[in-house]
Order: sequence, then structure tokens, then C-alpha cells
Amino acid sequence: MALPANPTPAHGHCNPNHPYATPQGIHFCLCRRHRKPNYENRITSPCAPTSPASPNILRKPNHVPMRTNISGFPEYTPSEQLAFDAITSKIRHVYESFGYVPLETAAVERIDTLTSKGIDSKEVYALRRLNAQGDDGDKDIALRFDLTVPLARYVAQNYSSLTFPFRRYQCQPVWRGERAQKGRYRQFHQFDLDIIADGKLPLEADAEILAAANTALTAVLPQGTAFTMRINNRKLLTGLVEGAGYAGDDVYKAIKVIDDLEKVSAEEAVKRLTEINGSANVQALLTHIKTTDFSTLTSLNDMAQEGLTELQAVLATLNQLLPNSTTLVADLTIARGLDYYTGTVAETRLHAAPELGSICSGGRYDNLTASLSDRNLPGVGVSIGVSRLAAWLMDQPPYNS
Amino acid sequence: MALPANPTPAHGHCNPNHPYATPQGIHFCLCRRHRKPNYENRITSPCAPTSPASPNILRKPNHVPMRTNISGFPEYTPSEQLAFDAITSKIRHVYESFGYVPLETAAVERIDTLTSKGIDSKEVYALRRLNAQGDDGDKDIALRFDLTVPLARYVAQNYSSLTFPFRRYQCQPVWRGERAQKGRYRQFHQFDLDIIADGKLPLEADAEILAAANTALTAVLPQGTAFTMRINNRKLLTGLVEGAGYAGDDVYKAIKVIDDLEKVSAEEAVKRLTEINGSANVQALLTHIKTTDFSTLTSLNDMAQEGLTELQAVLATLNQLLPNSTTLVADLTIARGLDYYTGTVAETRLHAAPELGSICSGGRYDNLTASLSDRNLPGVGVSIGVSRLAAWLMDQPPYNS
Repeated sequence: MALPANPTPAHGHCNPNHPYATPQGIHFCLCRRHRKPNYENRITSPCAPTSPASPNILRKPNHVPMRTNISGFPEYTPSEQLAFDAITSKIRHVYESFGYVPLETAAVERIDTLTSKGIDSKEVYALRRLNAQGDDGDKDIALRFDLTVPLARYVAQNYSSLTFPFRRYQCQPVWRGERAQKGRYRQFHQFDLDIIADGKLPLEADAEILAAANTALTAVLPQGTAFTMRINNRKLLTGLVEGAGYAGDDVYKAIKVIDDLEKVSAEEAVKRLTEINGSANVQALLTHIKTTDFSTLTSLNDMAQEGLTELQAVLATLNQLLPNSTTLVADLTIARGLDYYTGTVAETRLHAAPELGSICSGGRYDNLTASLSDRNLPGVGVSIGVSRLAAWLMDQPPYNS
Repeated sequence: MALPANPTPAHGHCNPNHPYATPQGIHFCLCRRHRKPNYENRITSPCAPTSPASPNILRKPNHVPMRTNISGFPEYTPSEQLAFDAITSKIRHVYESFGYVPLETAAVERIDTLTSKGIDSKEVYALRRLNAQGDDGDKDIALRFDLTVPLARYVAQNYSSLTFPFRRYQCQPVWRGERAQKGRYRQFHQFDLDIIADGKLPLEADAEILAAANTALTAVLPQGTAFTMRINNRKLLTGLVEGAGYAGDDVYKAIKVIDDLEKVSAEEAVKRLTEINGSANVQALLTHIKTTDFSTLTSLNDMAQEGLTELQAVLATLNQLLPNSTTLVADLTIARGLDYYTGTVAETRLHAAPELGSICSGGRYDNLTASLSDRNLPGVGVSIGVSRLAAWLMDQPPYNS
């Protein structure tokens, strides 16, 4: 997706008598009609003035300059940036059509706000003023790690001026001080969509969020790109795990094994689950979570039954909102690692690119703002890993044109 | 520009039988038609689905939550964010119509890249990994301070894949660790426009940059908002200062006094200029730089003559590009503080809001990449202080609707 190597010569629609034409009569057309990928038909206006080019701009010496950007902080070429902007613009328009408003938060948060959410502090980039003397008040701040914690802080802070349920989308970079390695970036963009309510957030919000994200993916993916959004409920999963005999900390350990089911063999999963609790009914648990027929889920405990009822309600609303969708399935093996999810959880994979992992994930978090506010501000949200998705899309038509 | 305090009740164009209507039959309309300021007529599609609202979302307790964003890192409300996005979108469209492509650079640069440009290192926000052990390779990076140095680094680094002259626009936040005070932000957006050439950048590029910025301001300001873009040339100014008897370091000192002329009395300016060099022809210098008639500039030295010729050429091209503009004036008192300017310099003020200072400034820098590359990559650029401008615009129609 590099720009053309050399300026394009004059074209018919460019005015060779333009005041910018060079004394030599050479007119280099660098107007957007000739430089931009034509993937979005954005080019509607006549060519703009261009500057004269001196002959030596065509010289391409071989020397490579020394200064570089920093490992893990990728930068797009202008053509790639145009493609990225086209991708985020499509998602934005879908989200606005669903009634969401944009929000951008400051790049920094207080360190205690960030780390109160169980983030590995080694991955947090703290700021310090270079050569600052004494206490300058900038010592306890760090770059944001995700967009969910800043949202929770923003809503708690601006509670009195917001309309609830508060619906916002947010597309901004996040920073993670991970060890540099292939495919691991220290700066990347997330495109988040969330609803936060004051007091009670109805279950239909879960379906609305997933429908909006599903619609955005359909808009942004090349036509015919198959993807599956797998939906589960953490109450159902927790209830099934408890019903199989796990209790206390073992419940979350078992859920972590289930979260890894796609990566390990069936035998390995049984082995790990048995290691956590030798007397648990591992086979019944695996049979339950692998079912695609809810009617096989009988004798559920109260938590599992509540989760199943919620899951069925979310699916029913989703089928009203996206009546002909082939992208939605219930999948009781979906757990999502993060421990702040309390209900609906979802993951999305492209059939053609399973190696990307989930490109769109999220769920319901009823207690995320507990440490930020004394109010009950439950939320549900979904995040598109737009840097990762864009990296794949840029190799596909129409974005690779 | 706060959102309406309460959800709006159902409107005729919303479907009260929508699946999201509450069991009580109450339908709260939170669609974008009712939530967004209507300043841009962006609302063309039918209303989107909205969620049911539980009765307690109308409760507005008095408690103020404790967590806040950080002083100097302002955040917009969603309505303000919509206005800001509308403002940047207008500028973007003008710049694209002039043939510029978007660029975004990583938030961080190497500290030695940043400080090689004479920035006060106390204002640089360096990063450190919180609780990281040993050398993790992230110790020498810092948040960008402006968008010009990252551009120079990007062009030097990606020289072989870029088309020259390279035209890009860039709208991103910059960070400055200044002492917190009213109107001084530690994070704010700049909207930059630059051309960088390989070897030689023709003077018409200076006019093109100023014409594009002028057009963008006209597009973004409320109709009839008067502004003046004052244009000068550093060679002319330097030549006049030298012609008055200043030499060596005194030249830049005198230029700094001229840069402050609007802030001090005529007597104070004479006093300061005399302090720098008691034998300089201060009155002749002040008479020269205050003239609005170039024909009074006689007996110029070579540098001043070269600057005057350049200034006249830039103005002539600008008058071709913007034939009926009332916003352009030559003003020989314009200096711009930054020492990397080598030719054309410009500042722009709103007549109605002189307290904003210059909302759009820039100039020609022929040697900025010297420390980043062994090539000669001269540039010219202009920066709109879009955070500052937007703060004013949001109080004006149509943005305050």
C-alpha cells in the first residue's frame, strides 16, 4: 500500500497552465485523484492546485536515514492511513446510526485508577517530566491501558451532566508496555461501544450492543466475509461449573480452562479440570458446555437457570434486530478471561482468518464502577480490535486497491 | 453544550411499538436526532433503535464522585466532541481538496530526537514502565511535543517510500509538561499541514500552504467571522535587523523584541532594542518593519532584498489562489519565536477574539531535518491550534446549537 514511487505526470483533468506549473513546463500531478486509493469513491471534486516539482525531486539516493520510530509503535503509510480512516469511518457511521455519541478521553489516567482494575502494573506506561525539579503533580499518571476503565472513570466523574443510559463509542489508541515481539504492539487502537446505566440496565442493551457491533463488522468487512459472533452468559457458565462440584476460587480456575478449550485437546482439558477438583463431574460439565441444544440443560441450579434465561432473551432480541443473520450462535464454551464480566459475553472470529483471534469481544459488567463511584452504574460493551482487524483488511479488496 | 438533562419522551418519528419500548409503555427517545446538536445537518437517516429506560434513570442524586480526570488534560462532553469532530472534519476536507494525505505518527519519539530541536526538556513527558525490572528498552522514549519534529523524523525514516514533495495533514494531540494554570493545557490537539521536498521546495509551496490554511479557516469559522493572516519573511526581517546595525546573537535578540511588539509600548520596544545595541539605528528599523508600503524599503542589504522578493512572490501567488481574499496582509513585525524558520512566516488572529492569540501559525523551515537525515529536506508548514480555536467556536453559532 505504498504510495507511487514517483510523482505522476500531468493528466487531462489537470491544468498544465496552472500557476504551479514549473518553468520547464513539467506539471507533476500530486492531486488526491491520483494519489489516493479509489476504494471509497471519495474523490468528487476537481483537482486541486499542485506545486511545481524541481527536477531533483526524482533523485532517489540509496542512503537509509538512521532515525526510526520505536519498536512496537507502528505507523501507517499515508495510503494505509486512508484505509484505516475509511474502516473507522464505516464503524463510526454504523454506531451513530444506532444512536451512540462519540467520546474521547485524555491519554492519561491516575495510576491508582488503572491498577484498581487488576491490570498487570508492569505493562503500564507511567509518565515523568524529564528533568523536572521537585513535586510537579505529574508523578502519579500513566497512559491508558484500555478504553473501558477510562469510560467508567468518565461516567463516574461526569455523572450529573450525562443522560442515562449513556451510549458512547470511542476509537483511540491504548498503550501497553509489553515485551516487544512479532504481532505484539505497544500502541494500538481499540474501537469500543458501551452503554452504561444509572441503577438498572435492561437486558435488551446487551442485544443492542451486539447487534450494533455485528452491523459494523458487516459494513466494514469485504462483502461475503464470513464471521461468527459466539455468545454466552457468565452466570450460566458459573452455574454449570458450580453444579459440577467446583466452589470458591476453583470456579474461576475452571472457567480459565474452559476459556482455553480451543487451544488444548479434550484429554488435556479433562486432565486440567480434574487437577482443580478430583471429585468434580468433569464429563457432565464438558457435555453441558458443548451442547448446542438448550433443552439438554436440565436440573440447572438457580445461577445457571438465570444465565440461561438471560442468554435466551438476548438471543431472542438479537434475532429481532438482525432477523436474517447467519453470524450469531450461542456457544457455552465462551468465557472471556476478564473477571469483571458478570453476564453476557461474546467473541467474534473471521472464518478466513482464525489466527487473528477474536476481532470483536465484550460483555456485561455490572460492577465495574464499584471502586470509582458509590452508585450502581452497570454497563455492557464490546470492543473491536481495529488495529488488528485493519492489518488484515488492508490485504483484502477493496482496501488493498 | 451539555446533553439534555433527561431522556426526551417519544417523538412522532420513533416507533412506540419498538421492541425496546418498556413494559410500562414509556419510550425514551435517545436517538441521534434528539441528542445531537443539529449544526451540521448530519441527521438524515431514520431514528435508530433505543433501549428501554427503567424509571430510576431519571433520578439525579446530588453526590459528586471522587475520581476525576487530570488537571491540564481536558475532556469534552459528547456534544462538544461532536462539535470538535465537525470542526476537524471541515478542515480535513479542505486539506484533502488541496491534495494532502493524512498521516498519524506514534505518540512517542526518542528523547534525543525531541530534544535535538531545542525543546525545553522540562516540558517533555518521558515514559517508564511501572515496576519493570531491568532494561526493557523503553527508557529513552517520550510523548511527542509537537507534530513537526515527528513529521521530520517520519520523512527521514521513510524517505525511500515517499513521493516528494510530500504533502500531509496531521491532527493529533501533543503533550507538554507545563505547570498547570488557566488556559495552559498539558494535552491539546494541533492540526498541521506541511509540504516537505527532496532537495528544493519552490516558493509557491509557501503560498499553497497558506492558501489551504486560509481556506480551511474560512470553512470552519462562522460565516462573516473576520480574521487576518499576517505574512512576513524571516530573511527580510533578519536583513532589516542586520541593516540597522545588529550582528551575531544580537540579531535573534532583536527579533525576539520585535516578536513582542504587540505586547509592549513603543517606548519599551525602543528601550529594549537600544539595550541590545546602543549604536543600532532603532528608529529606522521600527519605521521599516511598521511600513505597509514596500516602496519605502530602499537601500536593502542582500538578505533583506532576497526576503522582500520572496515575500512579494508569496503574496502574488496567494492573490492568484485567493483572488478576493480580505484576510491576507503583509506585516513585517511578524517574527514567530521558533528559531527553525528560515523564510516565510505567518500568524492569524480573529478580530473578535484577539485574546486567543494566533490560531494558525507557521512558516518555512529549510534545515529542520538536518539532524535527522543527511539529505536536504526543506519544508513549509502551518499549524491550526484546533483545541484553542474549538474552545472559542463552541460558544458561537452554529456550533453552540
